[in-house]
Amino acid sequence: MSYNNEPKRRPDFTVNQQQPFNAEPPCDALIRNYVTPNDYFYVRNHAPVPSLPGESYRLMIGGDVPQPISLSLSELKSQFPKVQVMATLMCAGNRRDELNKIKTVKGVTWGPAAISNGIWGGVPLRLVLHAAGIIESNFRQYHVCFEGFDICKDNTGYGSSIPIPKAMDPQGDVLLAYEMNGEELPRDHGYPLRVVVPGYIGARSVKWLKSIVVQKEESTNYFQRRDYKLFLPQVNWDNVDQWWDKSPPIQELSVQAAILEPKNGAAIDTGSPYAIKGYALSNGHRIARVDVSLDNGVTWEPATTINGEIKDNTNRYWSWFLWTYTVRSMPSPCRIVCRAWDYASNSMPGDAPSIWNLRGVMNNSWHRIDVVSKSKI
Amino acid sequence: MSYNNEPKRRPDFTVNQQQPFNAEPPCDALIRNYVTPNDYFYVRNHAPVPSLPGESYRLMIGGDVPQPISLSLSELKSQFPKVQVMATLMCAGNRRDELNKIKTVKGVTWGPAAISNGIWGGVPLRLVLHAAGIIESNFRQYHVCFEGFDICKDNTGYGSSIPIPKAMDPQGDVLLAYEMNGEELPRDHGYPLRVVVPGYIGARSVKWLKSIVVQKEESTNYFQRRDYKLFLPQVNWDNVDQWWDKSPPIQELSVQAAILEPKNGAAIDTGSPYAIKGYALSNGHRIARVDVSLDNGVTWEPATTINGEIKDNTNRYWSWFLWTYTVRSMPSPCRIVCRAWDYASNSMPGDAPSIWNLRGVMNNSWHRIDVVSKSKI
Repeated sequence: MSYNNEPKRRPDFTVNQQQPFNAEPPCDALIRNYVTPNDYFYVRNHAPVPSLPGESYRLMIGGDVPQPISLSLSELKSQFPKVQVMATLMCAGNRRDELNKIKTVKGVTWGPAAISNGIWGGVPLRLVLHAAGIIESNFRQYHVCFEGFDICKDNTGYGSSIPIPKAMDPQGDVLLAYEMNGEELPRDHGYPLRVVVPGYIGARSVKWLKSIVVQKEESTNYFQRRDYKLFLPQVNWDNVDQWWDKSPPIQELSVQAAILEPKNGAAIDTGSPYAIKGYALSNGHRIARVDVSLDNGVTWEPATTINGEIKDNTNRYWSWFLWTYTVRSMPSPCRIVCRAWDYASNSMPGDAPSIWNLRGVMNNSWHRIDVVSKSKI
Repeated sequence: MSYNNEPKRRPDFTVNQQQPFNAEPPCDALIRNYVTPNDYFYVRNHAPVPSLPGESYRLMIGGDVPQPISLSLSELKSQFPKVQVMATLMCAGNRRDELNKIKTVKGVTWGPAAISNGIWGGVPLRLVLHAAGIIESNFRQYHVCFEGFDICKDNTGYGSSIPIPKAMDPQGDVLLAYEMNGEELPRDHGYPLRVVVPGYIGARSVKWLKSIVVQKEESTNYFQRRDYKLFLPQVNWDNVDQWWDKSPPIQELSVQAAILEPKNGAAIDTGSPYAIKGYALSNGHRIARVDVSLDNGVTWEPATTINGEIKDNTNRYWSWFLWTYTVRSMPSPCRIVCRAWDYASNSMPGDAPSIWNLRGVMNNSWHRIDVVSKSKI
């Protein structure tokens, strides 16, 4: 496969890697909308974008399922109810740039915008698994493995898995999505069909879905077993081999918050009122509070948070909370810090060095940015 | 009511308050057993212990339920299946002593042993609510209020509430318990009937249960509305009134870990191998890793964790993980630090001052203890 047939993208994206394409939207554009427009949604690809005609597409469901089935796109649309799930996707490597500054990590150097919120339209995964004969109580210890058409390591498709209880939970809201914000799924986001696993790291929401395999062990795919793991700070490339198998794959998202406006390093009018803005989320948990500090965490003030309408039939908060904290003025230079608390009283580690890890994943340390007065530059 | 009829307790408890009785077991005794023996289970009372004859006991279930019912203890035992749930209970004020040292907080000064693990026998709450006509889908926005026979503030019983989705979730494992570790519930722990809400702060597991009321709003009881809330560090007794109503009640437990052996301030043989021991838990989440540091968090090593057998029919880890980290020797003096990570990559804040709060609740900062060599004292 080659990179000759990539989709068109916005010119204002920050491109962290060209091949495969990995890019995040401008922070100020991202914070502007509660639901991220399709063309501003961050793109995290592992290979060239597959070119798949929707008419001939078929999804294979097999492995240990009692009745293996295959479904065309039109069968998926006609034989199953369509539901909409609003969910924020975030890359496990979001905010990797901060860890990279402490000590070099391996991975795409994402800023704080490897995150976006979308309304996904499609079929609940549990209904498709049910059609293949899966009854949760008989398969509780099993895993649902997804493989994509995007050819990565060892000439196999990108792959991942989630445990059956998440897949079958009506409140888990896992979707096989063919629509994104009311439009046909864009090629960069998995056309014609992708998985959306709300509350999990983006890596589990496999795009260009080729097959679903139910099996006793988690996916043996490279991206489940040899990537997306969170190590102790002292694990390095010389000793990492002993850690892969004994470290669990990252699945659920931790509590997270970041500042999107102003941008780190910005020169702003510090003498006037300024609305500091950002996001917070925590794996389906409601956010209880977002705190902002202008003195590096000695004192904090609460921000105002908003969250999209929660439908009556779910108690999970899959979508981010956007927050605003307006200051009358700031010193110059000024370091702005934020942290979030979820409803389980989980909060964020204060310093990044203590959670530094070889792959630079799950950086949810207090987000710190520095700004200066326009007049001082 | 008076304190003339309190049950007998172990003499080796650390009594943090005599009336009402609030005491924690010795750390070394607590860590010795995965399941805490009844007489070593921490005791958190808000009033004199009620003296209730089991024979005449009746539980009232009312409020907005379609069929209000009342059940005697023998009816509860005969008309509903008995299940066993192993669950750790922890007081929201566990480790308050560390916050109190930073700046005075209000509340019983607990050390790190306001936590214990028990096997609870009783009736699933959801079955009793179902018998009263509750079907989750019709009551998703409702709350289940518990009131005890222990008379507290304003001459009303101790009370609390939990949301219906937690109460009705088969995986939520909320129990009306009449047994503790295979024995009749001891008086100090709620005889004849108590609630056990796994994964929530102990305050919601109401003892000496008098009534269950289903209603649209959460319990109006003092202990739901004017206690057990987590404030910003700058909230004090002069400005707290504006914070009560806009702060959510603490319900679910955050990720937590503490060292029980050695005890803080102990003089030990630092020149020989020593097994440092403690616990970790996170609201039903599996613990992914417990890290121990002997250099105040600059470097960390992983501890070995054990967790009780998980039954096939649940994916939640309601019971604590006990952990051990053996060092060959320690410097003297030595500060030992621990932190835990759960499977959602949530970890603990590094420093206690940044999470200090007026009521001294939910202290899950890295647990730090200091020891010295025996030979140096």
